[in-house]
Amino acid sequence: MPFAPIEWQNNKVKIIDQTSLPKKLSYLYIQTAEEMFDAIKTLKIRGAPAIGIAAAFGLYLGIKDYKTTSFKTFDKKFKDIIKYLSSCRPTAYNLFGAMERLQDKVGQFKKYPIETIKGAILEETLKIQMEDNKTCQSIGEKGANLIKDADAILTHCNAGGLATSGYGTALAVIFKAKEQGKKIKVYVSETRPLLQGARLTCWELAQEKIDTTLICDNMAGEVMKEGKINKVIVGADRIALNGDTANKIGTYSLAVLASFHNIPFYVAAPISTFDPKIRTGEDIPIEQRDPGEIENFAGKRITPKGTKIYNPAFDVVPNSLITCIITEKKLVYPSYRKNIKKVL
Amino acid sequence: MPFAPIEWQNNKVKIIDQTSLPKKLSYLYIQTAEEMFDAIKTLKIRGAPAIGIAAAFGLYLGIKDYKTTSFKTFDKKFKDIIKYLSSCRPTAYNLFGAMERLQDKVGQFKKYPIETIKGAILEETLKIQMEDNKTCQSIGEKGANLIKDADAILTHCNAGGLATSGYGTALAVIFKAKEQGKKIKVYVSETRPLLQGARLTCWELAQEKIDTTLICDNMAGEVMKEGKINKVIVGADRIALNGDTANKIGTYSLAVLASFHNIPFYVAAPISTFDPKIRTGEDIPIEQRDPGEIENFAGKRITPKGTKIYNPAFDVVPNSLITCIITEKKLVYPSYRKNIKKVL
Repeated sequence: MPFAPIEWQNNKVKIIDQTSLPKKLSYLYIQTAEEMFDAIKTLKIRGAPAIGIAAAFGLYLGIKDYKTTSFKTFDKKFKDIIKYLSSCRPTAYNLFGAMERLQDKVGQFKKYPIETIKGAILEETLKIQMEDNKTCQSIGEKGANLIKDADAILTHCNAGGLATSGYGTALAVIFKAKEQGKKIKVYVSETRPLLQGARLTCWELAQEKIDTTLICDNMAGEVMKEGKINKVIVGADRIALNGDTANKIGTYSLAVLASFHNIPFYVAAPISTFDPKIRTGEDIPIEQRDPGEIENFAGKRITPKGTKIYNPAFDVVPNSLITCIITEKKLVYPSYRKNIKKVL
Repeated sequence: MPFAPIEWQNNKVKIIDQTSLPKKLSYLYIQTAEEMFDAIKTLKIRGAPAIGIAAAFGLYLGIKDYKTTSFKTFDKKFKDIIKYLSSCRPTAYNLFGAMERLQDKVGQFKKYPIETIKGAILEETLKIQMEDNKTCQSIGEKGANLIKDADAILTHCNAGGLATSGYGTALAVIFKAKEQGKKIKVYVSETRPLLQGARLTCWELAQEKIDTTLICDNMAGEVMKEGKINKVIVGADRIALNGDTANKIGTYSLAVLASFHNIPFYVAAPISTFDPKIRTGEDIPIEQRDPGEIENFAGKRITPKGTKIYNPAFDVVPNSLITCIITEKKLVYPSYRKNIKKVL
């Protein structure tokens, strides 16, 4: 990919400020856990796998200059930062998964000097990032087997390089199919309110010179009816053990529409998106975001005062509407409860 | 209603400039057919019934100062203006219906002096407007019978007073139900790209102090799944003889979603929206609008250059997804082909 959404450089985390795309590609240099919290909260960095990596770096930034020789004191501080970062965004499982993984690592190193533990945290964080890179490549390869020459694929929001360590999940499938020489068209739903489809996915697809058409979210049914789409591929923020999948708001509507038009509906996500503690989608917490995201656009108010706003950031697609979940290990088909257990 | 979207005043047509709502309520004074063409084309006035009335006034403005004593010369000019105004927006049938009605009127008056014919055109135009007012009231009454206390209704785009002579079609049902003392909640989908739901419908509902919640278009499936909606009511731009209904883009997706969730889906429209020459929705011409409507928002570009844009202004809901069409004469249920013939 021609860009790196998140990099560890000179004791700082260099991230692309995704809120300024597609207008300009600019970077932020994050130096503290608080700055990382803010960057995630305000969607300067977003996308479930990227949030996991970013939070892991945030945790290291929060602990790296903490002075103590007592493991107990260190561990309390460490857990406080985990609690703090975990309160940032509630839906994407990768954040909690990354925190748990670092917590396990610290557990393994508890007999070692604090500086060694810190080193282990950084090492594990870089490992999470590197693994994500390989994972995305594998998702791309596994998923590309589903793509045929001349396919027209609808995707929603951004499940691309920007949402991961750099190659994406849903978009990895598209990138890989293109690398394999398949000619594909991609339709992108703009993804209100924050337009991640229009701003980020179209930008990524433009870098790769992929034939891209942007539509408003409410046009999805129409383009399906017109026969313009033969596959839908989206990412995921959290997947329950029965396959119910939380993803960007609008994904559920797309899944219903795809089902109505007999169009396969694929979810592409790393295993780290599966939450082993959650049995069905009903238990996935859904983030409610600021009404201002809908009330205002580019500083202009688009609705009168007094109008209430409902702004859930995600919705949950029931497993019955999902044709297949594309993971780095394999394509997971129904029955999901059984087959997900196998890949975990 | 506390506002008049279109008024004949001192030989001018006074219209609300709908593009400046909800920020301010400002008026335009239209004096020529060309100005009316522009006002309709740029959506300063929009909504199928309102377009019909506006085009009728536009036709009168185009002919009222035309000097001739020859009927043949007059009739040529008259038909040229009809052709011109008919090229303005292709989907809403009311425009063509109004033009035909004035053409018939001129046919009846062909033996009369030109000034008398002109008077007859203005009189017929004012009659179209007045009839629309009564029609909207009747639609409201007929439709309100379907509404129960505590209903939560989803509507799309603007089928309100602004889209008609002043009381609306889909919103007339809501206004009338409220006048009957029914407590109702209304959910409004914002209606990208031009946000007629957020800007216009929320504004109208705010005037009437109706409990209103704005959602993004892609949230419709989710609010239905959550059980927040028990009826969908929309307007129509053109209805075929079999009940297939063209309406603002996004309506088709809502109809599929409503069907999936077993929520009744109602179309509210005057008889003048039925096109007696069109047998099915496949024959309804769909306006494609400027890509700039999607590429830019409030002067800000939201997607990279090179991304293609697909921007149909309308879609067609097949009759199978429509529970009932609310007209001023009666509630029209399936089978539509038979029952529409009866009301025409």
